Amino acid sequence: MKRIGIGLLGLGNIGSGTYKVLELNRTHIEKTTGLDLRITRILEIDTERDRGFTVAPGVFTQDPEEIINDPEIDIVIELLGGLEPATSIMVGALKAGKSVVTANKAALAENYELLTETAAHTGQQLRFEASVGGGIPLIGAITGNLCANEFTELLGILNGTTNYILTKMEEEGRAYDDVLKEAQALGFAEADPTADVEGHDVANKLSILMSLVFGKRVRPEEIPTIGVTDVTEQDIADATAQGCVIKLLASAFRKDESVECFVQPTWLNKEHPLADVKNEFNALFLKGNAVDDLMLYGKGAGPFPTASAVIGDVIAIAKGL
Amino acid sequence: MKRIGIGLLGLGNIGSGTYKVLELNRTHIEKTTGLDLRITRILEIDTERDRGFTVAPGVFTQDPEEIINDPEIDIVIELLGGLEPATSIMVGALKAGKSVVTANKAALAENYELLTETAAHTGQQLRFEASVGGGIPLIGAITGNLCANEFTELLGILNGTTNYILTKMEEEGRAYDDVLKEAQALGFAEADPTADVEGHDVANKLSILMSLVFGKRVRPEEIPTIGVTDVTEQDIADATAQGCVIKLLASAFRKDESVECFVQPTWLNKEHPLADVKNEFNALFLKGNAVDDLMLYGKGAGPFPTASAVIGDVIAIAKGL
Repeated sequence: MKRIGIGLLGLGNIGSGTYKVLELNRTHIEKTTGLDLRITRILEIDTERDRGFTVAPGVFTQDPEEIINDPEIDIVIELLGGLEPATSIMVGALKAGKSVVTANKAALAENYELLTETAAHTGQQLRFEASVGGGIPLIGAITGNLCANEFTELLGILNGTTNYILTKMEEEGRAYDDVLKEAQALGFAEADPTADVEGHDVANKLSILMSLVFGKRVRPEEIPTIGVTDVTEQDIADATAQGCVIKLLASAFRKDESVECFVQPTWLNKEHPLADVKNEFNALFLKGNAVDDLMLYGKGAGPFPTASAVIGDVIAIAKGL
Repeated sequence: MKRIGIGLLGLGNIGSGTYKVLELNRTHIEKTTGLDLRITRILEIDTERDRGFTVAPGVFTQDPEEIINDPEIDIVIELLGGLEPATSIMVGALKAGKSVVTANKAALAENYELLTETAAHTGQQLRFEASVGGGIPLIGAITGNLCANEFTELLGILNGTTNYILTKMEEEGRAYDDVLKEAQALGFAEADPTADVEGHDVANKLSILMSLVFGKRVRPEEIPTIGVTDVTEQDIADATAQGCVIKLLASAFRKDESVECFVQPTWLNKEHPLADVKNEFNALFLKGNAVDDLMLYGKGAGPFPTASAVIGDVIAIAKGL
């Protein structure tokens, strides 16, 4: 059994989910991979919260240097979110010879060159399957099995909150504000939903996908972005009358050597595979010049689906250590 | 640029598609991977057929030993189909220190232990993404990004011919025999459609997936299999009246430590993600204990989608050489 030391940054919802899935599937992972994955240090201020499991004494730390400089830690999982201190700690960990797994789309979209170039220079791996589409294995597919394709089109439903809102507006004929309030009460939307409903979260994810799918670096603030706040019941009714649904899409199209991309509420014919992606589900539709139409569908958020992607990345790195 | 010598077994539809995609996307592949992938020998009897491209003199051979024993060949792509001589040549290539990429579901389903154990013993890679679901990157996802999951459920639409027939029967209210004849005329069904319509092709694919998804070796002949030949217009009308569609499904369910699996025409509620998979498209629906519901959708056959998967496997191997 190969023992892998893991430093975990952040024990919030996603961090706790990752901890739980690692314990829940420990026997399965050990049996199928021969890996003994051990979270030995956790960076977290809130050490008292009841998370449904017990962290051994001495595992919690409030000093990132204790993880970066720990010789027994091989891989750092970054689940702090936000630009800083997440970016600096990831760079520090890479420079200290540790590979990094992150779900942090904001930090990746903003600091893509810094992070990927630091990984390349240090010879460490930086993996981020969970940053776009949660548990859906889309980055692995794009960079792995599909890498023989030139892609011509990308359409993504990449935000569960707004897809939930649009689905309820369509199916129940309700107004935006009304559904948003319900989504907040149910925990599907945050108290401050700006990043979701204004499309910034989707723009971050599209920025990451532009690098991987089209090899074009586009900063999130360069992506023309319109959210769902102005979608009315009348808009939805008009779309329905024409056999369409309205989805908040991340779109990109290759035209000769250039690639156009944008985020906006978009009419989709009900026959399109993405039209049936409902509620909190996410999906990515791609057209490649060999594979043709392809869609990957699943849960784009949530502690367990995100943990699935994070631990998949950890195992991929650990197998090579 | 790293030069990789490739021996290709079979230059039929899929082999020709692989050859074409490799040339079409040569610049893209060289730029993104640094790999110069060269098909240097091709095992094929029919050297005269017009395939739309020219094979250089001396590349064709009719002796598999010339590929197995060629020191300049690193990877063998097997696209002969059928059990023999495909299986023996793959074993010979592995033993000669070459990795193997195959799309051959029949040979894999029948000789899974022999092929995977030979690969393990020789330290060579055996990859077969194209054998199930054509261009859909499902094997990569199951064995890669999703490997932290225990799976509880698998439902697959894994045969384009029968899905085309059932779609046309449903949408146009036509009889099985009538649609089958049209599918044959259009080239979607073979002159002898037995392997497709009796479900044997799907059973082969389910056999392969059982090993990967549930770690259970089930031989294709052990899988209870019913094809689509007895599906009537009345059956379809009955399903429609109940808000369902009939799909030929590969199904597997984990119950405690055992896994049940079978292939049969199955009623699916129209709300299920697989219900909208129409015509020649394939899809795999999985439920994992971390990722939850997941669906991968795309073209399950055809020269270019299959080539996408084959070349993806070749690149994965070549990167490690």
